[in-house]
Amino acid sequence: MDFSVWMGTIQERSENTLDRLLPAAHIAPQRLHQAMRYAALRGGKRVRPILCHAVGEICAADPGRLDVAAAAVELIHIYSLVHDDLPSMDNDVLRRGKPTCHVEFDEATALLVGDALQSLAFQLLAEQETGENAARQLAMISLLAHSSGSRGMAGGQAIDLAAVGQTLSLEELELMHIRKTGALIRAAVLLGAYCGKPLTAPEMARLDHFGKVLGLLFQVADDILDSESTTATLGKTAGKDAAQNKPTYVSLLGVVRAREKAAELRAATHESIAPFGEAALRLHQLTDFICDRSF
Amino acid sequence: MDFSVWMGTIQERSENTLDRLLPAAHIAPQRLHQAMRYAALRGGKRVRPILCHAVGEICAADPGRLDVAAAAVELIHIYSLVHDDLPSMDNDVLRRGKPTCHVEFDEATALLVGDALQSLAFQLLAEQETGENAARQLAMISLLAHSSGSRGMAGGQAIDLAAVGQTLSLEELELMHIRKTGALIRAAVLLGAYCGKPLTAPEMARLDHFGKVLGLLFQVADDILDSESTTATLGKTAGKDAAQNKPTYVSLLGVVRAREKAAELRAATHESIAPFGEAALRLHQLTDFICDRSF
Repeated sequence: MDFSVWMGTIQERSENTLDRLLPAAHIAPQRLHQAMRYAALRGGKRVRPILCHAVGEICAADPGRLDVAAAAVELIHIYSLVHDDLPSMDNDVLRRGKPTCHVEFDEATALLVGDALQSLAFQLLAEQETGENAARQLAMISLLAHSSGSRGMAGGQAIDLAAVGQTLSLEELELMHIRKTGALIRAAVLLGAYCGKPLTAPEMARLDHFGKVLGLLFQVADDILDSESTTATLGKTAGKDAAQNKPTYVSLLGVVRAREKAAELRAATHESIAPFGEAALRLHQLTDFICDRSF
Repeated sequence: MDFSVWMGTIQERSENTLDRLLPAAHIAPQRLHQAMRYAALRGGKRVRPILCHAVGEICAADPGRLDVAAAAVELIHIYSLVHDDLPSMDNDVLRRGKPTCHVEFDEATALLVGDALQSLAFQLLAEQETGENAARQLAMISLLAHSSGSRGMAGGQAIDLAAVGQTLSLEELELMHIRKTGALIRAAVLLGAYCGKPLTAPEMARLDHFGKVLGLLFQVADDILDSESTTATLGKTAGKDAAQNKPTYVSLLGVVRAREKAAELRAATHESIAPFGEAALRLHQLTDFICDRSF
């Protein structure tokens, strides 16, 4: 199956899974549930679910288990976008081509939407069968919680806040991204692995490394995309980081060296999963797709 | 041991446990970790941890397990206070006698503090040994996630938001409180039970009922306390609900009937745990303590 067709099927599965697992809009409190569904459905590239499913091919994971794990990590991602768009954070009005959640509803509702989406992510991992046994499900919850928290995604956002108007070194910028975006990308990779037959410790370490490098690659590609796109093609406010005087790979390195950096990371990403052979085909294709969005 | 002495020891255990389980203030991102510790430590009545430990006496639960379960439910409670105090919600400047988190730090940090405290609660329940086996720990995570989410606490807050300036019936007010405050009170009770030797289904149902009635009693007592106190004695802004035109038991029933309601709930609470005999001593005492704060 062609990669873009395969990706389309996973995006559709993800949409259907979220639709099924989110509370129905007619269940009380209706406005909150409507807002949760507004934020979560019909939009988004579903990179993390696709990643989860691509890793699942390496370890012969059950697609139904992958659906739940992918939904959990995507819910964490979505909640972070809803909170990130709030006036006290990035103050953004456009997301995925639609008004952001607090613009469409109101700030208080958007705050609760994010809070409730986070709870739902952990509820799914605890209630749905995602791993071979309860101990493995606990490991998945621990991983996702750690990746989301103060030493993961939320911590990366805190560093990002502190960086506005600051001059960061490349190392500091990477540390910020490793937490802000990288932690959840890595979690998507490892959650996919937990859904299948147990891998060896070296295999898990390889996937762990792959997840970390891919996370950085994703961010460099995103910075290049953001610097060169218009708001219309991007579906969110373009050039925002530059306007807010936030450091990016492009502002720090210039676009030429940022592209070189992306090319290096791309090669390192492919290399890290080469030992998996044919089973890693989708992961290789996804890596190329993430790069070719922007160059 | 006198109840107030026992309660003091549990409050001290709770403080020490939170201090131990929260990220240290010198770990990066320092400002976020300082703000998480500011919000969580040195304050609060620790009603939910005390409840957890009191239930633990019924089922001979290990105190170390109870400490972790109690910390998890308290972290959820604390995150909800931090978000509830934000300008887009209750816009409160005083909590536990101190400036609220967004006043002491800033709004964006307070938002991330709440987000990261929620992740930490689930991380603790997944990583620390709280139940006899992994399956029971999953049940505890499921319970806490459901109690926190859109059909629990966050949902209750959404109903509360929608109720500002509205006339609610007593039934609607109770439905709101069952979710907003009651769900987490009930979770504290059941988490305490999960930490010990397995109870029978009727015993669990009895505790479940106890948790629900106690949650309402707690809210009625809180409304009476709020209507009659000054800001100085309360440590948070007094008379806030009335000023915001929010319905309360006192505004709906008047203070005399609100007290009668509290007395009825108090009797029902005691009755629900009477079959546990002497083992429920601390629960009976805690019920009385909750009531006698205000009358």
